[in-house]
Formats: sequence, structure tokens, C-alpha cells
Amino acid sequence: MSDIEIPESHPRYQSLLTRHRIEAGVEKGITSNQGLIAQGRGEAFDYLLGEQTIPSADAAERAAAAHLLLADHPVVSVNGNVAALCPAEVGELAEAVGADVEVNLFNRTEERMQAIADHLREHGVDEVKGLTADGRIPGLDHERAKVDADGIRSADVVVVPLEDGDRAEALGEMDKVEIVVDLNPMSRSAQVATVPIVDNIIRALPNITVHAEELSGASCEELEAIVADFDADDALGAAEKAIRSGGDE
Amino acid sequence: MSDIEIPESHPRYQSLLTRHRIEAGVEKGITSNQGLIAQGRGEAFDYLLGEQTIPSADAAERAAAAHLLLADHPVVSVNGNVAALCPAEVGELAEAVGADVEVNLFNRTEERMQAIADHLREHGVDEVKGLTADGRIPGLDHERAKVDADGIRSADVVVVPLEDGDRAEALGEMDKVEIVVDLNPMSRSAQVATVPIVDNIIRALPNITVHAEELSGASCEELEAIVADFDADDALGAAEKAIRSGGDE
Repeated sequence: MSDIEIPESHPRYQSLLTRHRIEAGVEKGITSNQGLIAQGRGEAFDYLLGEQTIPSADAAERAAAAHLLLADHPVVSVNGNVAALCPAEVGELAEAVGADVEVNLFNRTEERMQAIADHLREHGVDEVKGLTADGRIPGLDHERAKVDADGIRSADVVVVPLEDGDRAEALGEMDKVEIVVDLNPMSRSAQVATVPIVDNIIRALPNITVHAEELSGASCEELEAIVADFDADDALGAAEKAIRSGGDE
Repeated sequence: MSDIEIPESHPRYQSLLTRHRIEAGVEKGITSNQGLIAQGRGEAFDYLLGEQTIPSADAAERAAAAHLLLADHPVVSVNGNVAALCPAEVGELAEAVGADVEVNLFNRTEERMQAIADHLREHGVDEVKGLTADGRIPGLDHERAKVDADGIRSADVVVVPLEDGDRAEALGEMDKVEIVVDLNPMSRSAQVATVPIVDNIIRALPNITVHAEELSGASCEELEAIVADFDADDALGAAEKAIRSGGDE
């Protein structure tokens, strides 16, 4: 996290780092115009949330870690903003839980796919899926539906940060455990998730990794208890309450 | 308002029109990357507000119209997002209240200044100020401080929609009546305004114009009574309450 020359103690460090990475993403052809607008929406919700990981989000991140450790074939889905904001953090999470990393774009062009895959590789993600695109998600039109047959198509647990509502819904209907990271608890993506994480992705991914490392020695029973304890509706309710009341749950 | 082929009755018409105009603004070199992120922040606040003009915003728009009609030298300030979103609406407001229109950018380049001035002229704004830049706002660094001596510098009432906090503050210290349009009632711009309007600019500017036309025959006493009746803190409180509670005041 040292790609800008600002001390980490700076009160606006996280916000400035985020801004810097998004701008660099634009220059590299990774972040789209829609991605910039989405970034702004996220900033507003995070501002209302107090720019902090609220307790219910931390619990969701722990449940996500448990799901990922229990999974047979977990996949972390990466779009333009995820790649721009957290390339190394995606790799660290994937390594901690043994997940595949797959690029998955709402506005898919070969050029952007390639730029994102390259960016991930530069940040330590060795194997990047998504370029084969030999599988489909049922219920979506052609370009939107493309995934890898041995990636998201056959995954039992998927992490889909900052995902579009239509695709989150279609993935949910495929009987996968769906872990969504979205700062708007009222969004369709958050509403259809098995585990909705209402938190900034810059805080959420590293925190799932921390939980996964902590839980790496846990038994299946312990992990299943964490999964069973988590209630998506309660988490969404707590997040909306925090946003409406100004960051306190 | 017929620049896209979607019926005005479409439930997402306003949102789609906004998106279309912002995208067109990017293509024309009017909207910056920062402008796209700011647009996203506005979308999130507007979503929480219920995408409607709440009663306190309507009252603020009426007070703004009264201030503008009482002014000796009113100016409407236009930045990239304002120009992209409401070029014709800026012209209509300026005409209704006899205001100057001045381009005023946070990231000022001659190229963007020119693109915005051209875009405004294409939409019926005949005289566009801001290119002379022979005046300064005290308390701001060089590029940020530039304004026209016979425009914003000498105005007694300024409309500054979607304005940066530093500049809103510096303008407020010049003893001008400052009318701010900003969807975030907690923003510094909204906090320092004489009249903070917490509303989408796409709804706000036409509604100020409607009020100005309605009040065109009013006496100075009537206009002054409207101005005196308006309380900025009450309006900000009502807007924040609406955002926190989901659109109801």
C-alpha cells in the first residue's frame, strides 16, 4: 500500500489512495466511465457509513472467510474497479483460501479484459481466468453471460465485489454461495447475496483474508457454525441503520 | 429535454437522461474524471433522497429566485458537470433573472473552458463569461482563484451549483449572497451557503426558473419577505433528515 507519497497516518490516507488508484486505473484502460460514477456512489455511501468497517460487516467478512474455506471451488470475480482498487489484495485473498481469480466485466471488451489481467499479474496474481469465456451464466444476454467453464461456471462459492444487480441475481439463481461486497445495502446485488458485505472493498478484502488466516486451523464444524450464525437480513438491516443514522449501528 | 430516445414517462427517464448527458460530456471533453466521480456521489445522495424535490428544497429554490430578482448583478457559475447536465436550463434561468453566465472550473484548462463555452452557446446561452479571467477570488491559489472582473468578481448574488468546498467558502467570505446546489447537505459548500439547495441540479435549476417567472411581478417587499423567511440551517436539517430517513421530511 505504498504507491502514493502520503504517510499512512494522514487522516485522508485511504481516500487519497483510493482516488490515486482509480485515476491510475483510468490511465491504464482498466476503469470505465461507468466505473468512475460507481466509485462516486460508493464514496457517498462510505461517507454516510463513517468510512469504517461496522461490526455487522466484520461479521459478514468472517462468514465469507468460513464459506471460502469450506468451498470445493471458490472463485473471486474481478471487474475494472476491483482490479484498479485492490489488485494485490485480490491475490492475497485468493491465496489464503485457495480460490481462482476470474476477470468478469459488465462492459466486456478484449482490450479491457487484457489490461485487467495484466494489471493483476503485475500485482502477484499468477493465474487469471476469464479470458477463455467458454461457459455461460443462464438468464443473461450473450456478452454479459460469458464466464470460464472451469471458473465461475463451476464454482460453488463466488466472491463478486461491486457486481451489477442483474448478474448478481443470475449467479444467485445458479445455487452458488454468493458473497457480495457493496456499499449500498439497498442495492439488488446486496439483497440477493448469501453473504452481503456492506463495506469499502479496500477494507473488506484484506479483512476477509485476516479472518481466513485466523480460521485456517478451524474444523469444518466450527466453520459451519460461523456460516449458520450469519443472517443476511440482519446484516443488511444493521448496515442500512448505520447509513441512515450516521455510522453508528 | 428530448436528446435521448426514451419516453419521458419511463420510470427511469430522468436517470437515463442524466447518464446520457454525462457520457456525452465526456466525449466532448467537458466532464472530467473527477466530475464522473462527483456525479456518482450525487446519484447516491439523490437515491437516498427518493429522487424528488423535497419541500425544503422547493422553499430554497423559491428563496433563490427571490434573491436573484432582487440582485443588482447576479451570476450563474458553470462547471463541467453543470454544463454537461443542464446547458439549456442554465440559459433559461439566466434569462429569467437577468443573470450573467460564467464558466468557472476547479481543474481549469483553456481547452475545457472553450469546450464548455461552446457547449453553452450551442444550447442558447449567447454571452459566456469566464474566459477573460482578469479578476481573482481572495484566499485561493492562482488557478483556482481566476474569475472575470465584470462577472463573479463583482457579482452581488452568485449561483454556484456543484461547487468545491474551498471555493464556496472563499466566495462566501466575499460578502456575496451564495446560492449553492449540492445533494450532500453535510458538504462544506452546502454548509457555507446563504441558500443551500439540496436537490438534483436537473430538477433545481428549472424549478428556480419557474419560481422566478411566478415572482416576476412581485414587489421588493414581497421578495424580501421570502428571503427573510428562509432559514438555511432549517433547510439543511430537513434535507439531512430526509436522506437519513429515506426521502420523507
